[in-house]
Amino acid sequence: MVDTVDNKPPHQVVIVGGGFGGLYAAKALANTNVSVTLVDKRNFHLFQPLLYQVATGTVSPADISSPLRSVLSKSKNTKVILGEVNHIDSQTQQVLMGDEAIPYDTLILATGAKHSYFGKDEWENVAPGLKTVEDAIEMRRKIFSAFEAAEKETSPEKRRAWLTFVIVGGGPTGVELAGAIAEIAYHTMKDDFRNIDTSETQILLLEGLDRVLPPFAPELSQEAETSLTKLGVTVQTKTLVTNIENDVVTIKQGEEVHQIPAKTVLWAAGVKASPLGKILAESTGAECDRAGRVIVESDLSIKGHPNIFVVGDLANFSHQNGKPLPGVAPVAIQEGEYVASLIKAKLQGQTLPQFKYIDKGSLAVIGHNCAVVDLGFIKLKGFPAWFAWLFIHIYFLIEFDNKVVVMIQWAWNYFTRNRGARLITGEQTIIPESVLITDEETSHQQAGSKIIVNR
Amino acid sequence: MVDTVDNKPPHQVVIVGGGFGGLYAAKALANTNVSVTLVDKRNFHLFQPLLYQVATGTVSPADISSPLRSVLSKSKNTKVILGEVNHIDSQTQQVLMGDEAIPYDTLILATGAKHSYFGKDEWENVAPGLKTVEDAIEMRRKIFSAFEAAEKETSPEKRRAWLTFVIVGGGPTGVELAGAIAEIAYHTMKDDFRNIDTSETQILLLEGLDRVLPPFAPELSQEAETSLTKLGVTVQTKTLVTNIENDVVTIKQGEEVHQIPAKTVLWAAGVKASPLGKILAESTGAECDRAGRVIVESDLSIKGHPNIFVVGDLANFSHQNGKPLPGVAPVAIQEGEYVASLIKAKLQGQTLPQFKYIDKGSLAVIGHNCAVVDLGFIKLKGFPAWFAWLFIHIYFLIEFDNKVVVMIQWAWNYFTRNRGARLITGEQTIIPESVLITDEETSHQQAGSKIIVNR
Repeated sequence: MVDTVDNKPPHQVVIVGGGFGGLYAAKALANTNVSVTLVDKRNFHLFQPLLYQVATGTVSPADISSPLRSVLSKSKNTKVILGEVNHIDSQTQQVLMGDEAIPYDTLILATGAKHSYFGKDEWENVAPGLKTVEDAIEMRRKIFSAFEAAEKETSPEKRRAWLTFVIVGGGPTGVELAGAIAEIAYHTMKDDFRNIDTSETQILLLEGLDRVLPPFAPELSQEAETSLTKLGVTVQTKTLVTNIENDVVTIKQGEEVHQIPAKTVLWAAGVKASPLGKILAESTGAECDRAGRVIVESDLSIKGHPNIFVVGDLANFSHQNGKPLPGVAPVAIQEGEYVASLIKAKLQGQTLPQFKYIDKGSLAVIGHNCAVVDLGFIKLKGFPAWFAWLFIHIYFLIEFDNKVVVMIQWAWNYFTRNRGARLITGEQTIIPESVLITDEETSHQQAGSKIIVNR
Repeated sequence: MVDTVDNKPPHQVVIVGGGFGGLYAAKALANTNVSVTLVDKRNFHLFQPLLYQVATGTVSPADISSPLRSVLSKSKNTKVILGEVNHIDSQTQQVLMGDEAIPYDTLILATGAKHSYFGKDEWENVAPGLKTVEDAIEMRRKIFSAFEAAEKETSPEKRRAWLTFVIVGGGPTGVELAGAIAEIAYHTMKDDFRNIDTSETQILLLEGLDRVLPPFAPELSQEAETSLTKLGVTVQTKTLVTNIENDVVTIKQGEEVHQIPAKTVLWAAGVKASPLGKILAESTGAECDRAGRVIVESDLSIKGHPNIFVVGDLANFSHQNGKPLPGVAPVAIQEGEYVASLIKAKLQGQTLPQFKYIDKGSLAVIGHNCAVVDLGFIKLKGFPAWFAWLFIHIYFLIEFDNKVVVMIQWAWNYFTRNRGARLITGEQTIIPESVLITDEETSHQQAGSKIIVNR
């Protein structure tokens, strides 16, 4: 703790969540005269925008993760606690982890979002999403095990199903996954098998709206679709998934219904806010939207509680253009930094104008040396876009701890199309057939994963 | 398959196991006129000598693993099959994976060894060993979770137990683990915590014999012990572990019995051969030694079966100096290459003199820039030894696929004492107290780990 000049006990700021929102808030409060406690379930910050590269075997989880303690080790006023907050008492001003209570003067909630199946939660068992390191390892296992199973498969139909990859959702994650799997099938592994020809792999990218990358300018969506098609990805827009069962994906296009036999389905569609939003609502009467996000005031606090803030994917901030801000890293970062400045201002008896998000643009990688970047004032595509994307991500990655060499390696892999990180780990993969996950099996998995700790 | 000149079907070589012995045999047979099938449970070759660096958060599993398919993708006569051999039929000359049979003309078994608890198998639940990627991730979880638990612990006794690390076995792995944990506690993480002082960490290295690194020259064992002590490790030789239970390690030193409260016990003591040795014995009448290793002839074949060879940790080759050759990578590599040459020679109607292991020396890392190297004709210690160790390992690592950049990163981490790969993954670590693994909990884990696939 850092004492204030007049020896009052320091102002206690508790931050829940070490993602972009929470970590940038903590960094902005580093070595000030407030006392900061950062609580997270995990001991590391995850650079989620690159998680798809773990899922596709380009980098390892640690390459895109930074231990929270080492990121904050020089912030002497900051304490990191590993734990899960399951209750908030806004009366006594404390957050609870089981029977352990942490008092706060100011509370910042930044626990983000997880993927959502629009009520079809049973699909999670057959179509993993991509939010955590464990999700990425599971996706990586599914993708690479599918080729192993195809190599052993004798029935042509089943082999085709093993070599069919369906990606649900045409946002940045879906586009990046589809492009990366095309890379794997048509380039990285083309000489690796003896019984199958990986160039026969089918990759379907399904999007409900009329174009991929909806947040981008239409011409960039068009460009993305063209590039994906060149890479060998089949892009299907205006397509709804109505069922995923027994290795068959049922889709609806207008009135037409099609069935696609596919052993590997990857989910990149919806997200819902972390349950802590509802917990906060119960304790404070704050309002949540349908996605479970907490509706915040123009200063990111919640109604009636000027000392409780919500930032990042957990927050619904609609004061800018009526629509909630998107759940992307730049929004979370700017919100976290704004709240930190506001706390400092208030302690000096000052205030700040309402939060304003400055959109620096959006980018998405499509494939090898190919991306789309929409900076508003300028739109890039192809290699220049990819290079801009690479540069921006290196810049943010090295900000925490020294990931320079990792990024060199990663760029190297990218150019050489090498994917050294394509490990299939876990006992069950001994028999690739077992990649076929039945609901029952997977419910074991879910149960197991509560117990299993050595991933 | 590659046809022989006279269009006879090519000679079928089946290799079971993609470790050093099996993979070097496969590489030596690459693009010859034999047809090679390499069977492994995993889709990657693991560079085991660096596994302790995964367990201690320096590198990621993928950094020391190479996908078998990419290592062998240019060997057009070589097929990789992912599967587990559970039966050998030496009459019909085929190996079986479940109901799938692979016929062989020549069989090479190279399935290695796993760690052994000298009959105290229940210790595996509380004192993990270090043979697989999963072992290393579990060790990493235990090591870093222990510090997290200590940070939250209020009872001084329990806190001391959380900060006590007992490593059983003073061979290279034990020495390397002890040195690395000292690094972590006294350097890497010294600024990372607010409630505990990691310099209070106790690290005990227990060895049954009268010195650490028994295979080395006595003066190097002495040097290693001195360096470990300087690093802060308490080395106890002539020490036997008689019990590990309820977070207490019971040791016997001569007549004295001591009890050490420790939440983290790591096993680096015994190994036993893979079960495939016994399976082979049943099918062929081959003899196994007490460690389960198959006793081989002077050409590494087994008695009465000149077309079945055993190499690496699974083999007991005692024709050189009466003692079995040690279970280290260089032995496995030379044995694998010898058998490959012998097969080629035999097909040309020639033969070879008996196998002879050329000992190029042994090396072990103690800690930061410190190692011992015994090349027979020259003994190195301190930085020169560490540098030699680094060079030799880089040399072997880059042989398979391009790991240069990884090794740069790893050397960089080594110099900067950075350990970016200290992720604690897995749900249970949310509450560090749960690091305390009861047998019952762990038996769930064992069960679970058969089901869980997303590590």
